[in-house]
Amino acid sequence: MNVLVLGAGQLARMMALAVKPLNIQIRAYDVGSASVVDPLNTELQYGDLSAGIEFADTITAEFEHIAHDVLAKCEASGKLKPSSQAIKTGGDRRLEKQLLENASVANAKHKIIENKSDFDQALATLELPLILKSALAGYDGKGQWRLKDKAHADDIWLDIEAFFAGGEQGVKHAVVAEQMVPFNREVSLVGMRDVHGNTKVYPLTENHHTDGVLTVSVALETAVELQAQAQLMFDKIANALEYVGVLAIEFFQVGDQLLVNEIAPRVHNSGHWTQQGADTSQFENHIRAVCGLPLGNGDLVRPTAMINILGEDTVPNEILSIPSVTLHWYGKSKRAGRKMGHINVSAQTNKQLTERLAEVANILPSRAFADIQQYANALSKNTD
Amino acid sequence: MNVLVLGAGQLARMMALAVKPLNIQIRAYDVGSASVVDPLNTELQYGDLSAGIEFADTITAEFEHIAHDVLAKCEASGKLKPSSQAIKTGGDRRLEKQLLENASVANAKHKIIENKSDFDQALATLELPLILKSALAGYDGKGQWRLKDKAHADDIWLDIEAFFAGGEQGVKHAVVAEQMVPFNREVSLVGMRDVHGNTKVYPLTENHHTDGVLTVSVALETAVELQAQAQLMFDKIANALEYVGVLAIEFFQVGDQLLVNEIAPRVHNSGHWTQQGADTSQFENHIRAVCGLPLGNGDLVRPTAMINILGEDTVPNEILSIPSVTLHWYGKSKRAGRKMGHINVSAQTNKQLTERLAEVANILPSRAFADIQQYANALSKNTD
Repeated sequence: MNVLVLGAGQLARMMALAVKPLNIQIRAYDVGSASVVDPLNTELQYGDLSAGIEFADTITAEFEHIAHDVLAKCEASGKLKPSSQAIKTGGDRRLEKQLLENASVANAKHKIIENKSDFDQALATLELPLILKSALAGYDGKGQWRLKDKAHADDIWLDIEAFFAGGEQGVKHAVVAEQMVPFNREVSLVGMRDVHGNTKVYPLTENHHTDGVLTVSVALETAVELQAQAQLMFDKIANALEYVGVLAIEFFQVGDQLLVNEIAPRVHNSGHWTQQGADTSQFENHIRAVCGLPLGNGDLVRPTAMINILGEDTVPNEILSIPSVTLHWYGKSKRAGRKMGHINVSAQTNKQLTERLAEVANILPSRAFADIQQYANALSKNTD
Repeated sequence: MNVLVLGAGQLARMMALAVKPLNIQIRAYDVGSASVVDPLNTELQYGDLSAGIEFADTITAEFEHIAHDVLAKCEASGKLKPSSQAIKTGGDRRLEKQLLENASVANAKHKIIENKSDFDQALATLELPLILKSALAGYDGKGQWRLKDKAHADDIWLDIEAFFAGGEQGVKHAVVAEQMVPFNREVSLVGMRDVHGNTKVYPLTENHHTDGVLTVSVALETAVELQAQAQLMFDKIANALEYVGVLAIEFFQVGDQLLVNEIAPRVHNSGHWTQQGADTSQFENHIRAVCGLPLGNGDLVRPTAMINILGEDTVPNEILSIPSVTLHWYGKSKRAGRKMGHINVSAQTNKQLTERLAEVANILPSRAFADIQQYANALSKNTD
């Protein structure tokens, strides 16, 4: 079976590696060069999008910010899974919020802002502080604001107006204002839905961010009630989208309550631990789903954590001699802040895992991993 | 880092898949076409052996029956690991028996036969029944005899003489006569030795053969004493060869005693279960070793078994919906008896494993898997 993945980054690469043993061939459409490549050897080119669609039995995506004409062309072939609507929902906070409301899934109080009147209403109906985010992908790091004090509202509105004016022409821009949630921690759930509507989920993962970028995910033996709550929300969202494939949901946990932060209609960085901690990785399960194969089990095989490697192209070989540590490079050239690879760390118990995670983190150079070290050291002290 | 593997079959392919995440590139020398290929996409050609040697930082092998001039050329580059001597020892039962004797490792009573006088001495000093095997690889299924009754000795000697005469010219042929061992079961140990002489081993695996070909391997929680005995023998053999890489040893188990049947200087079919049952698979550990990286842990993560798929290019998709079942195809075209792929089955306990193994076996078509079904059903009844 042949699959075309829209996007030719590390997620397509890890899908290709995961399903080579199923005799499934993956090619990837690189949106930058508008050409189809082998994700395991991106120098190999296989023509344009039309050639890729022709090659494929099934088409899927590794990210949600794909030009709508590309999605339309793929959907017209009848081969695209999940649907273009599901992919677009992940790439547009307006659609995402509508979905959550329609499916009755708890999320932060919010208001969609397309003009000054919307902005004023948001100020009148939501409690400060607010976080305001571009509905579509931001560009050049722009597209996000925090409003803590009404005195700054006018300045921020001027900024948002300029942002709307500077965005792509012909696209209706908007910002979603959200009441900031005083959360205890951020967690995520990665799950999958097959072509028949069956769903399976992996255990909840605790996520740590450094300067807004995911750096550590930890999958431990987790509380049954919280997992059930997350799974119910997953089912509501995946069913509402008639979703096929892997879908990730990021939550804020407030006490025992989960609020959806955002959804990602694809394999997700917080699910990379499944390569070592689950029977079937998220990469294999995504491709199984879109190819109409049965889903693999999502249960935790053993507590597992992931450390992202950002902007570094080497780590000390010493970490390879620690039991149950696995290194995953993406074959990319070095660039500051770039996701270059990740390290999976597994163990037999929660306590052993957090201790081993701290051990690995402390071997990594503080220059690049100081915040991860701090998090891992604190986690290991707090785990029984 | 770049590695050239001598041999372009499924073992090279699984090495390439295993170490792509370490950013190690593998190319394979196909001895049939005398050309270097990408083991993940064998249509891609990269020149001849010299080009492959030039490409490589390290050269290794996926099998032991490699032309000596090829080995010599690779060894002259200073990049070959393990040594050509170690590879040749695995391909020549004379050298193998000398090694076992020199390293004081228990094996069956035997006699190397190069002429009629040797044959007569074997009859005089060994107890019947004997198994006689060509020292080098047999060809066309020839090169193996069983002698149960002295009355047949003359006939067999005539046959062996003809075999010597029909073999490759300029090669000194021989047969090794072994006293047949009344073994309880066949087991194997896969282990690895790094460039510094450190060794690690995986747990002993119980092997089942169908018509002389491995069809099932089962790695269970095993008796500590037996494992220690096997590890000691591994260390003697690997150290005697100054071995670097993964090495497999097949044993006959007689009561609590292990006798070496044969060694394989490479990753081994009875170690395929390590892809799901160990932290680091035999494929990754072999490449780690030959690249001078630290060895990964060999401990059993969970009981795991492997079923070989011979001569079939499909299995029912239903097996993918059983938890902890993983399918590995080799991307080969169908041919009767050919190793086409394997199925790994994992579980939390020995009992759960053997039950699940039987469940999987019974879903497979009896046409091709009847003997495996019989073995798996018996094993599941005998496991607590």
